[in-house]
Amino acid sequence: IANKDGLALKELLQELHFADIAEILEELNSDEATYLIKLLETELTSEALMEVDDDVREKILDRLSPKEIAAELEEMDTDDAVDMIAELDEDIQKKVIDKIVDEHHAADIVELLKYDEDTAGALMAKELVQVKETWTVAGCVREMRRQAKNVTRVHSIYVTNKQGQLTGRLSLKDLLTAGEKAHISDIFIPKVDYVTVHTENEEVARIMQKYDLEAIPVVDENGKLVGRITIDDIVDFIKDEAEKDYQMAAGLSQDVEADDTIWELTRARLPWLVLGLFGGLGSVYIMQGFEEALERFPILFFFTPLIAAMAGNVGVQSSAIIVQGLANDNVKGSLFNRLVKEVGLALINGSTLGLLVVIFGFIAGLDPLVGITIAVSMLSVIIVAALVGTFVPIILDKRGIDPAIATGPFITTSNDIFGIFLFFFISKLVLDF
Amino acid sequence: IANKDGLALKELLQELHFADIAEILEELNSDEATYLIKLLETELTSEALMEVDDDVREKILDRLSPKEIAAELEEMDTDDAVDMIAELDEDIQKKVIDKIVDEHHAADIVELLKYDEDTAGALMAKELVQVKETWTVAGCVREMRRQAKNVTRVHSIYVTNKQGQLTGRLSLKDLLTAGEKAHISDIFIPKVDYVTVHTENEEVARIMQKYDLEAIPVVDENGKLVGRITIDDIVDFIKDEAEKDYQMAAGLSQDVEADDTIWELTRARLPWLVLGLFGGLGSVYIMQGFEEALERFPILFFFTPLIAAMAGNVGVQSSAIIVQGLANDNVKGSLFNRLVKEVGLALINGSTLGLLVVIFGFIAGLDPLVGITIAVSMLSVIIVAALVGTFVPIILDKRGIDPAIATGPFITTSNDIFGIFLFFFISKLVLDF
Repeated sequence: IANKDGLALKELLQELHFADIAEILEELNSDEATYLIKLLETELTSEALMEVDDDVREKILDRLSPKEIAAELEEMDTDDAVDMIAELDEDIQKKVIDKIVDEHHAADIVELLKYDEDTAGALMAKELVQVKETWTVAGCVREMRRQAKNVTRVHSIYVTNKQGQLTGRLSLKDLLTAGEKAHISDIFIPKVDYVTVHTENEEVARIMQKYDLEAIPVVDENGKLVGRITIDDIVDFIKDEAEKDYQMAAGLSQDVEADDTIWELTRARLPWLVLGLFGGLGSVYIMQGFEEALERFPILFFFTPLIAAMAGNVGVQSSAIIVQGLANDNVKGSLFNRLVKEVGLALINGSTLGLLVVIFGFIAGLDPLVGITIAVSMLSVIIVAALVGTFVPIILDKRGIDPAIATGPFITTSNDIFGIFLFFFISKLVLDF
Repeated sequence: IANKDGLALKELLQELHFADIAEILEELNSDEATYLIKLLETELTSEALMEVDDDVREKILDRLSPKEIAAELEEMDTDDAVDMIAELDEDIQKKVIDKIVDEHHAADIVELLKYDEDTAGALMAKELVQVKETWTVAGCVREMRRQAKNVTRVHSIYVTNKQGQLTGRLSLKDLLTAGEKAHISDIFIPKVDYVTVHTENEEVARIMQKYDLEAIPVVDENGKLVGRITIDDIVDFIKDEAEKDYQMAAGLSQDVEADDTIWELTRARLPWLVLGLFGGLGSVYIMQGFEEALERFPILFFFTPLIAAMAGNVGVQSSAIIVQGLANDNVKGSLFNRLVKEVGLALINGSTLGLLVVIFGFIAGLDPLVGITIAVSMLSVIIVAALVGTFVPIILDKRGIDPAIATGPFITTSNDIFGIFLFFFISKLVLDF
């Protein structure tokens, strides 16, 4: 299709939704995609560009001139424009901004670029519908029609005082049902949730979810209304966070996808495997230290993968529950209570599993003392693994480190080593080899 | 606080947001919470009830009469009302529905109860703003005011033909700027995304995300507009799904939280640990089969936890990438290409790790042949683990089973067993013991 029959192609694609155009762009090679971007109306391509994968967008932008990029930005809401421009090199950023015709739009973008990446300031858009307390309903409707032109979707109408400070919001229903002469100050709702430009994204997501908001206004240090954040940005944020946590738990660094190159996938996977390898070599070293058991109790060495698996599984379970609890803000109560609970839980699980091991040992004709030793040391390993899995994330969180790094290979590897050492140590004490 | 000073308490809480009331309810015991629910206006408590944890809500509802529950339902949107009533026993459901005063509301609830849990029908609300093609703008505004009373938030205005079939949507902007006498058929947008009552939730979430929709209309088999789904329900759905996948990968069945009882946590954790235990016992059995290596190459047994860890880690990485890719619909290309890619990736990772093992063996003064044997068999284990991790989820997905169950303990355990067997098998071939 993409072989130069411009007009026919244009006609064909012009009718599609931007998300579908985005999917087509991802299937094409960079030159074809760039050709398509240049061919189609910026109104359509700007939205499609925001929708495609980061790496596809990067390649297309590389092939566009600053002026062409500026034309795309012109069509975007400020929040999307900032996201896109932030991906460019700084000197290209300047060139692109210079080429934006609408000065107001350019100034908004420059302002938003200033904010920290993880804060409401960087997430918000400048486009919103704002009315003053002092206006009448009739004046307000007139003004709203004007403002609405720049806003793709009207979520909420925010009310400000003379100084531009946020004082409340206006319901469309109330506006429709009020008399033409009524003043906004009579009908607006003075209670409104808001965040400041410095509020962290995670907190914004929490507030919007808790109160089921579809948009939230953003104010600066002086309470002045400067932007708004809409729920679609939060949906993307929540999904990204969930995927990041999931990948971290699976031992994948960086944001990888099934369709990335082998090289990208290797970079995401290999470091964690090397960590696991060193953990495994540590276990080799520990077992060499207990070599004297080889002669009398070789069965112990058959059980090491089982012990390592139990330590790993219990640790991952405990840490996953805590990491999710911390993210959802429902880890309450004292550390001591949590300690008691985890130990209790580990005792129940560990005893059940220990009993199964003893039964297995009996059936397999194992020396009962050896069977019981294995069961008891496994119980101890489970308790320790549960405590490590629970408290490492809590401690990390208290120190301001993302507790999610304590899930996955990190916790598995350290619990493997701990577990195997503890297993042989206790066995040595009981069996006296 | 909650000791009978009803009036003061009521005054204090009446001003709070329902989400804050919900937090308070979760802190109280069931009797106190029920007391509070009865004390406050249903307008406030109905929303708070939807916000609290399932188990807290269950306990409160147990203590309310059908009539009191009906009063709460009366205040809710139909989608929330259905979610709540679906949690009750069937005979109580009937009693509660009988007590709902608003017959129309009751009929809507009964209708929604019919749909499958995971489909758009069960997720949608009946509350929406609907206008007919044939109306004039003036008539439309009048009718909209009436309908808007039942709708908490107007997201979109849907346009239907005489038969009630969905034909398009109306932008508020166009409505505000059109003349009073214009007909809806002249100004409405005939293109609108929709789903049917039978569309699965996952598909609804995918469409709404792809097209950045904040609400989507739902039609029945005949194209008749019957409801709408709003983005806040999708946000909850996306979060629940992400948490479920995460928990499954961590070896937790059921929807557990850090604050659940020890019993609930045990039920979620123990089954997976037992699975791991049997896997471990399987390894014991395999190693007994290679017992003759104990005398000449005991070092092999020191390496089993490392082999198991590698097999487990690689398997989890591969499966996590595929499971996420399947969920996001970006696993493209033929199975053969994927096979080549995974093997290539495993070769790169495995060779690097194998080289490290050989170097370690050299430093530790290991027989070079043994070192190389371990490295080569580890490489084979990594390749097999990557293939299992990749193709098991794909096969499950093709058979309509949630591929997420193939992450976590399931894949780890089977890869442990496979890996250890393969390791000893190859070692036996090479070292000839």
